[in-house]
Amino acid sequence: MRKELLVDLGEKELINRLGKFMPKNQVLDDCAFIKNKNDNLLVNNDALVENVHFNDITISPQDLGWKAVVSNISDLLSSGSRKTIGITISLILPAKTEWVWVEELYKGINKALKEYGGIILGGDCSMGNEKMISITALGIQGELELRRNACKPGEIILTTGIHGLSKLGFLIQSKNKIVSDIYLREELTSKCIEHFCRPHINPNFLKNLLKTRSNKKIKKVGCTDSSDGLFQAIEDLAISSNCKAIINYDKIPKDKNWPKGVQWDEYYFFGGEDYELVFSLPKKWAKNLSRLDTNINQIGFFTNGEPSVEFTDNKKNKLLNTKPFRHF
Amino acid sequence: MRKELLVDLGEKELINRLGKFMPKNQVLDDCAFIKNKNDNLLVNNDALVENVHFNDITISPQDLGWKAVVSNISDLLSSGSRKTIGITISLILPAKTEWVWVEELYKGINKALKEYGGIILGGDCSMGNEKMISITALGIQGELELRRNACKPGEIILTTGIHGLSKLGFLIQSKNKIVSDIYLREELTSKCIEHFCRPHINPNFLKNLLKTRSNKKIKKVGCTDSSDGLFQAIEDLAISSNCKAIINYDKIPKDKNWPKGVQWDEYYFFGGEDYELVFSLPKKWAKNLSRLDTNINQIGFFTNGEPSVEFTDNKKNKLLNTKPFRHF
Repeated sequence: MRKELLVDLGEKELINRLGKFMPKNQVLDDCAFIKNKNDNLLVNNDALVENVHFNDITISPQDLGWKAVVSNISDLLSSGSRKTIGITISLILPAKTEWVWVEELYKGINKALKEYGGIILGGDCSMGNEKMISITALGIQGELELRRNACKPGEIILTTGIHGLSKLGFLIQSKNKIVSDIYLREELTSKCIEHFCRPHINPNFLKNLLKTRSNKKIKKVGCTDSSDGLFQAIEDLAISSNCKAIINYDKIPKDKNWPKGVQWDEYYFFGGEDYELVFSLPKKWAKNLSRLDTNINQIGFFTNGEPSVEFTDNKKNKLLNTKPFRHF
Repeated sequence: MRKELLVDLGEKELINRLGKFMPKNQVLDDCAFIKNKNDNLLVNNDALVENVHFNDITISPQDLGWKAVVSNISDLLSSGSRKTIGITISLILPAKTEWVWVEELYKGINKALKEYGGIILGGDCSMGNEKMISITALGIQGELELRRNACKPGEIILTTGIHGLSKLGFLIQSKNKIVSDIYLREELTSKCIEHFCRPHINPNFLKNLLKTRSNKKIKKVGCTDSSDGLFQAIEDLAISSNCKAIINYDKIPKDKNWPKGVQWDEYYFFGGEDYELVFSLPKKWAKNLSRLDTNINQIGFFTNGEPSVEFTDNKKNKLLNTKPFRHF
């Protein structure tokens, strides 16, 4: 019998198989939900591996520390965490690592925690051949439960910001040929590096969501973050919520200097690491929220049908046949 | 200026430096303590790296999964966790890993969770050059807070079991010359392999501790586990509690077949991965508990003085000058 190797399975099949080891009532989402007497908890875990997620050329250790925290807090936020309790840090480092690298990493970690709340709760440190940072973040569930499986047909699909910038930032930092072959405005270049190295989240998102809620009885909102790319986020929502997403290509907010062309559309939709929120709301709520926060855009809607993603403009649909990039 | 590399710093100095990035009121212990409205929480994190903590020769993936969970639950227990909520798993695996390896790992993880309580809450999985498992475990703080810094002069030092067995198990599994050069009874050999591959914890420990408590006002107990070896556990208690440990060598429980000699004493004291509890109690409580659970032994006492570990028999003290082994 042929041996089944992970490289043959692929990431999706692997995640699917691993999910079977979890208790049946445990829903796969951005965070795990822990019911507790008073405050319900949210837990998230994210691992960054050298030469898979980062390297010394594309990102400084301080930026890496910042980004590791932000990627976890983004997951907490996309589940409706109203407060980050703290994080544990598992750090694997080669013996030849310089202390200053570790110091810078922790400076970045603490800067992000100072910005978005939470403390270092503890962790573990061990030697290994390649650098690895695994963070587990703990948050407190707010009034609204944001979940991948809570989207409903008829709801408007929204996103908190512009995509693709982080991917372009990565290409710039790694001095990729694609970038040197095209003229990019300085303004876009620096914005993309910032998005890749020092991503931000919108801490007012939940407050604004609550402020604009038209019906106080609604306690659940369909939501995820776009850490694996905008397309993946919409698809995850569609699959978890068992409905079909229809996206209006023309309504997708792009940076005014973003280049045109199929390749740039691919970067936009499949880039990843943007840490924007992708979610759906009833029409009235969606309208109120995108009026209050003009960075939030309505980009489509959910409808009944096979869990999938489609464009209103049929010509654009061939883009979605592109195999999504994973972990650039 | 010479670069400071981690290999030059050493583990203790590294942990010390990392501790400075934590909030001042956050005490370094086996677990982090999170104050909550009703149930207070305990969080622990432990990472196992291939060729540092394990390899394919010495331990099967199923045993590794079991052991990874037990080492975390042992830390929760040594902080007084009355219930394990669950764990998150960060898994880094080379692309050439066989699926059956992962499957076996998760079988072991779930067996241990079934035995000691808790569920898989979630996690992350990524590719990397070497295998790595990092587990973060969440528990609920019980009535008694077990802490490294809660030992008091005059208290009796106790331990829940026999040490060194796991270290010898590792030597047997790795076919070390030391083991082939000595006659070991079959009974000891199999016990050691069991201790190394499938370590157990004592889930009745807290119940018995509460049952034998002579003074209900006592809410804190000095305690840690011996995952880094018996000596390290006692030293950690002495340093955190700022008192001196005096150990009676003759009272230390040894396996009846344990070989004699300095080297075997070293394995006993510095071996590690035994996951026994090392703690201190007022005399009366210590007496009651060691009567109720005959596996628990009184091995010495704490006194005023420089935080350190000494034997009552001065001749034995040279053993303590041995540089402790780390991560065999």
